[in-house]
Amino acid sequence: MTKSDLTINRLASTDADFRSRLDSLLQRDMLIGADVVTAVKDILQQVRDRGDAAVLDYSKRFDGFDVANLADLTVGKEQMQESLDQLPASHLEALQFSADRVRYFHEKQQQASWQYQEADGSVYGQKITPLDRVGVYVPGGKASYPSSMLMLAVPAQVAGVKEIIAVVPTVYSTQNSLIFAAAALAGVTRVYTIGGAQAIAALAFGTESVPKVDKIAGPGNIYVTVAKKLVFGEVGIDMIAGPSELTVICDGKTDPEWVAMDLFSQAEHDELAQSILISPDAGYIETVIESVRRLLPGMERQKVIAESLTNRGIFIQSESLEQAVEISNIIAPEHLELSVENPEELLAAVDHAGAIFLGRYTSEALGDYCAGPSHVLPTSGTARFFSGVSVHDFQKRSSIIRCSAEAADRLGRTTSTMARNESLEAHARSAELRFKQK
Amino acid sequence: MTKSDLTINRLASTDADFRSRLDSLLQRDMLIGADVVTAVKDILQQVRDRGDAAVLDYSKRFDGFDVANLADLTVGKEQMQESLDQLPASHLEALQFSADRVRYFHEKQQQASWQYQEADGSVYGQKITPLDRVGVYVPGGKASYPSSMLMLAVPAQVAGVKEIIAVVPTVYSTQNSLIFAAAALAGVTRVYTIGGAQAIAALAFGTESVPKVDKIAGPGNIYVTVAKKLVFGEVGIDMIAGPSELTVICDGKTDPEWVAMDLFSQAEHDELAQSILISPDAGYIETVIESVRRLLPGMERQKVIAESLTNRGIFIQSESLEQAVEISNIIAPEHLELSVENPEELLAAVDHAGAIFLGRYTSEALGDYCAGPSHVLPTSGTARFFSGVSVHDFQKRSSIIRCSAEAADRLGRTTSTMARNESLEAHARSAELRFKQK
Repeated sequence: MTKSDLTINRLASTDADFRSRLDSLLQRDMLIGADVVTAVKDILQQVRDRGDAAVLDYSKRFDGFDVANLADLTVGKEQMQESLDQLPASHLEALQFSADRVRYFHEKQQQASWQYQEADGSVYGQKITPLDRVGVYVPGGKASYPSSMLMLAVPAQVAGVKEIIAVVPTVYSTQNSLIFAAAALAGVTRVYTIGGAQAIAALAFGTESVPKVDKIAGPGNIYVTVAKKLVFGEVGIDMIAGPSELTVICDGKTDPEWVAMDLFSQAEHDELAQSILISPDAGYIETVIESVRRLLPGMERQKVIAESLTNRGIFIQSESLEQAVEISNIIAPEHLELSVENPEELLAAVDHAGAIFLGRYTSEALGDYCAGPSHVLPTSGTARFFSGVSVHDFQKRSSIIRCSAEAADRLGRTTSTMARNESLEAHARSAELRFKQK
Repeated sequence: MTKSDLTINRLASTDADFRSRLDSLLQRDMLIGADVVTAVKDILQQVRDRGDAAVLDYSKRFDGFDVANLADLTVGKEQMQESLDQLPASHLEALQFSADRVRYFHEKQQQASWQYQEADGSVYGQKITPLDRVGVYVPGGKASYPSSMLMLAVPAQVAGVKEIIAVVPTVYSTQNSLIFAAAALAGVTRVYTIGGAQAIAALAFGTESVPKVDKIAGPGNIYVTVAKKLVFGEVGIDMIAGPSELTVICDGKTDPEWVAMDLFSQAEHDELAQSILISPDAGYIETVIESVRRLLPGMERQKVIAESLTNRGIFIQSESLEQAVEISNIIAPEHLELSVENPEELLAAVDHAGAIFLGRYTSEALGDYCAGPSHVLPTSGTARFFSGVSVHDFQKRSSIIRCSAEAADRLGRTTSTMARNESLEAHARSAELRFKQK
């Protein structure tokens, strides 16, 4: 494919083969090669068995870091603070603005413990406690993403997590400072410049240098994703994430260049990213496609955008805005823009979406950087059951039960009946011993 | 081992080898045989490829159900209602009492959507939606557990889930009616009398008869657990559960028979279940052990209890009640009884526990049947990061962002700076296009 090659996938909901073409373009079956799974399993085993030494081997092999000691890939609070102190004013201001807004939003998610008392003096409730220690995987590689550091670590900080360990794959030296500065703002305890399955393994099992964490959050490449799935249960995992996606529903009255650029902003992430436009206005769809063709040659990531749009981009003509929402519910997109006059009218009908952007002015990019909610969101249709990263991910609930003598009798009678029905005699007798009248 | 064989594992926190003996008795490394994983993978693949036919083959092989059609293993609303209508009054009363209390507790967990508005007219918030369709795995085999049907399905019902599909492994005919009656009370849509990895596969992938669900909750044997882990990501999963456990912290003043029976109630579940007593009172520990020896021979499940206590039971002498809580935090037990005079004084120090039972009258068994909170709780130390099944498991959050023209400008400036720092030009331009002053 040359730089300017672009194929547009154009569908109409009235097409006889609409659903089959939609499903085929969505490509939701996560096909993971057996070789990837084998490689990841080997990495997990090596790190489990050999700790730091294995992590160093992989860092040398995959990231080109040839160091003798994991301490050389460790960044502490002091170095983070230095990075923050040395930032140019405009960068610092942007980072601080973002961190403050993300913190403000997540403080609203704070859960409180609660209890209620019944007439007999018994108390029932739920106690909320933060996780002790979490790991955040901040993706990187081709570039570095200080925004993701904030979007993962700030919710953990708000949740009250005592120790936040961040891992960051190979970052170019000029960009390190932003990542470390963001870590400082988010209260990260320590950063390791390690990545891939070996970083997930180090966090899940612990090594001589890297402490074992209770939960790992954050997206990564296919090796990271497979590693997260394999260590699930050993530690908690936020979600299983795939390529990023955006669905825009438009009434045909938003500046077509705005929508074209929004579609590009998703497509530029990588070749597997997915951008979808749904509109009841056929003429408008054509205008957006014209804008896409006109704007594409000027884009820095032209090649990635063209490939993403060709392989996975979809332009769908629906019969109405209501039907557009129905189609979006089938897609269950990570990001959904309701680029229409009265987005609130459509909102109630949206069943599945990681984040919903209402109105023409709300570009998805604002959510990526500073609107407030975390930009780490469920992809590939998993918004049907996963939620975006939040304070909830970094806290847990313990049930509280405090029975009075009266309640032990009253609840004990039911317990005894049900336990004997389930052939659990000791359960029954444990309740019966506490009866008031035996 | 003969019926009466019993070995008591007695530890003191002052022992030089305390921590290593504790860790060894906790046996937290979930060692899953490669043969189990291979068998489960094969079952998943078969059900994915052959649907109903594969499920029927496994039901015949593992459960002895020789039927031609999955319809013969399907129980609809009408049959559930019939089971409910035909229950003896005392059973119905107990089931209804339990369902009502579980519903009441979980209604307190209901999450509300929220929004806030900023000065420039922008709105940010979180929208809560129930999952469309969930699967609950109600364990069974040796016995049948209507209580688990309630503890899984009622929270889903309270969450607003439209369709609740229950799977129940082989149940003996006399006990079916209680399971189906419980399903009726919990608003279950349909029950399939299938179990094991094949039931998880059917729920995760869907077959001709079993609809694909969005999330699966509920504990099972090692095949079920491995299957849940393997389908995680394809569907949501509540948690990875192991054998049940109880830790009792006692000040030495609770009737030793009560505590002995509480320990039995956990041990009777299965040979891998774990019962632990921690007390600063050495004499009291001896009294409880005497009660254990005296009461054991009269128990219906004597053999299972003896084996569980011998292999995994632990009697720990701590230096103080405070230290007992510290030890409990290392264990991070599924169930924790604070069988002391002033349990509230210890509660704040409890960091990790699935459910906490306060006071001498609150036997763990009450929580299993009718206190209110779900009895499906994190095991094997995973209370460090998992929570018990709740309404939260059956709902998800979507972020809401609605920016005014002013906010698009203000947030857009930060977005532009940060996006360009991350080499994401389209993100920056998508924000810049909406600047008021360009």
